Amino acid sequence: MRTIQTIQDLNAALAPFRRDGKRIGFVPTMGAFHEGHLSLMRRARKECDVVLVSIFVNPLQFSAGEDYDRYPRNLPNDSRLAESVGVDYLFVPSVAEMYAKGFRTFVDQDELPTKLCGEHRPGHFRGVMTVVGKLFNICRAHVVYFGMKDYQQALIIRRMVVDLNFNMDVRTCPTVREEDGMAMSSRNVYLGPKQRKDAAYIYKSLLYAKRMIDDGETSSSHVISEVRRILRKIKGSRVDYIQIINQDTLEPVREIKGKTLIAVALRVGKARLIDNLLIQ
Amino acid sequence: MRTIQTIQDLNAALAPFRRDGKRIGFVPTMGAFHEGHLSLMRRARKECDVVLVSIFVNPLQFSAGEDYDRYPRNLPNDSRLAESVGVDYLFVPSVAEMYAKGFRTFVDQDELPTKLCGEHRPGHFRGVMTVVGKLFNICRAHVVYFGMKDYQQALIIRRMVVDLNFNMDVRTCPTVREEDGMAMSSRNVYLGPKQRKDAAYIYKSLLYAKRMIDDGETSSSHVISEVRRILRKIKGSRVDYIQIINQDTLEPVREIKGKTLIAVALRVGKARLIDNLLIQ
Repeated sequence: MRTIQTIQDLNAALAPFRRDGKRIGFVPTMGAFHEGHLSLMRRARKECDVVLVSIFVNPLQFSAGEDYDRYPRNLPNDSRLAESVGVDYLFVPSVAEMYAKGFRTFVDQDELPTKLCGEHRPGHFRGVMTVVGKLFNICRAHVVYFGMKDYQQALIIRRMVVDLNFNMDVRTCPTVREEDGMAMSSRNVYLGPKQRKDAAYIYKSLLYAKRMIDDGETSSSHVISEVRRILRKIKGSRVDYIQIINQDTLEPVREIKGKTLIAVALRVGKARLIDNLLIQ
Repeated sequence: MRTIQTIQDLNAALAPFRRDGKRIGFVPTMGAFHEGHLSLMRRARKECDVVLVSIFVNPLQFSAGEDYDRYPRNLPNDSRLAESVGVDYLFVPSVAEMYAKGFRTFVDQDELPTKLCGEHRPGHFRGVMTVVGKLFNICRAHVVYFGMKDYQQALIIRRMVVDLNFNMDVRTCPTVREEDGMAMSSRNVYLGPKQRKDAAYIYKSLLYAKRMIDDGETSSSHVISEVRRILRKIKGSRVDYIQIINQDTLEPVREIKGKTLIAVALRVGKARLIDNLLIQ
C-alpha cells in the first residue's frame, strides 16, 4: 500500500490504471477506522482493480463548537488496518492541499440537506457535498462506497452524483454493529464505559420500533413515543430527533406503510450518535 | 461533424478518444453562433485532437422575466457554422436530459457571483456554475474555452475549476468585435437598426476611458462620469453598472493603478448588453 499526500502524486499514481481501463474503487473517509470502514474497503477490493481510500477530516462540514479539533486521528493505526484489507492507495491530503487560498466554491442541494441532521448541523451537508465533489473529481473512480449508518449523507451524495453527472456508481453498504447492536462509529470513543453500555439502547429502540410496525402498528407518533421511552434509559442523553420518514424524500410520515426509515440522533455526553433502520 | 443529443451517446462517442489519450477541447455555448463563438472553436481546433461544442440554453441561469423564451435558437445555422470551422461533435442535449426529475443540486460561490452582473441577475452565476460543472463532468475535456466578453463568468469558472478540482485548462479568449467595435453577442439581434448603431458607443466609451487612464487620470469616479456621459448618447438606454474594478476580486477601485478592468452593462430596448476592457 502506498500513502499519498498530494493531488499531483495521486494523479501520477492513478494515470497508468486509467490508461489501462482499470476499475477504480474509492472509499472516502475521515479516518479512525472501525469495521464499518473496513467492510467498505473489503467490498471495493472484491469489486474493483484498484482500491483507493481517502482520509480527510474535512473542516468545512463541522460547525463552530463541534468536534473538529478532537475528532479522533490515528494515521499509523489506520494505515495498518487499510493495508490489512488490501487497500492499494491511501490518500491523506492536508487541509491546505484541499482548500487552497481563496477557496470559495461550494456544492449544495435543496430539500434533503435541511432535514434530520441538517436541522441540527446547519451547513454540514454543504461541507460534505463540497469535499466529496472535490474528491470525486480528484480520484475519478468508477465506484464509490458509503455506509448506511449515514443514510442521509448517502442519499444526498447519490442525488448529487445524478444531478451533477459524476460518472460513477454509488454503493451504500450495511451498517456494521458491535455485539450489543451498537452501530460502529468513530465517535463512540467519546463515550465513557457506562455511556457506551447505555448507548446500546439506541439500536434496541429501533428494533423495538420495527417489531411494533411488523406487528401492525401504523401510527408514527405511537412508535416514536415508544422509542423515546426506551432512549430515556440512556443517562444524560438528549434527543436531537426521532423520525419515521419516507426513504427517498426524508419527509416524516404520519401513517407507516410501505418503505420507510426510522432514524434517530441523540447526544450522549460529548458524542452525537446517529442510527437508523429500514422498514420495508 | 456528428450531432449528439444524449449523455450516453456522447460518452460512447468520446470513449475511444479517452482510451487513446487524445486531447479533448470543449466549447460550452448557448448557440446562436457569431464570430466570437467561432474564434473559440478555431482555437480548440488548433490546440486539441477532438473538438466538442455544446449548445444548451440553460433555463437555470435565467430569472423570471429574462429572455429565456426568446433567446435566439438556430440549430441548422449553428451546425453549418460549427462544421465549417472543423468541430467534431456538437452536443445538443434537451432540458430533460440535463435536468432530470427531482434535480436539486447546485454549485455556487461566495463573493464573485454577487458583483457586477450578479447584482442585477440574482442566481445567474449559480445557474451558470451548475450547468458548466455538469457539462465538465459529462464531457471530461482537457481544455475548455470561454470568451473575454463574459469576463466575470470566465473568472468565476476559473475559480470553480481550481476549487472543485476539475482537471482541465481554462482558456479565456479575446472578445471579437464588429467593424464599429461593438462586441459580438447573440443578444445583439434584439436591437433595432438605430439601437444597434448607437450601441457602438459602448466600446467607444471604454476606449475613451482607457485613453483617459493612459493619459494619467487615476480617479475612477472621473473616468466613470465620462463613460456615463458617452453612454447617454444611446437613445433609451439604461445603465446597469459602469465599474472600474480589480481584475481578480472584481472589487471597485477608487484610484486606478496597475491592472484593472473597466466593465459596463446597460439595457438598450429589449437587450441587456455587456462589455469590458482590460487596463494593464
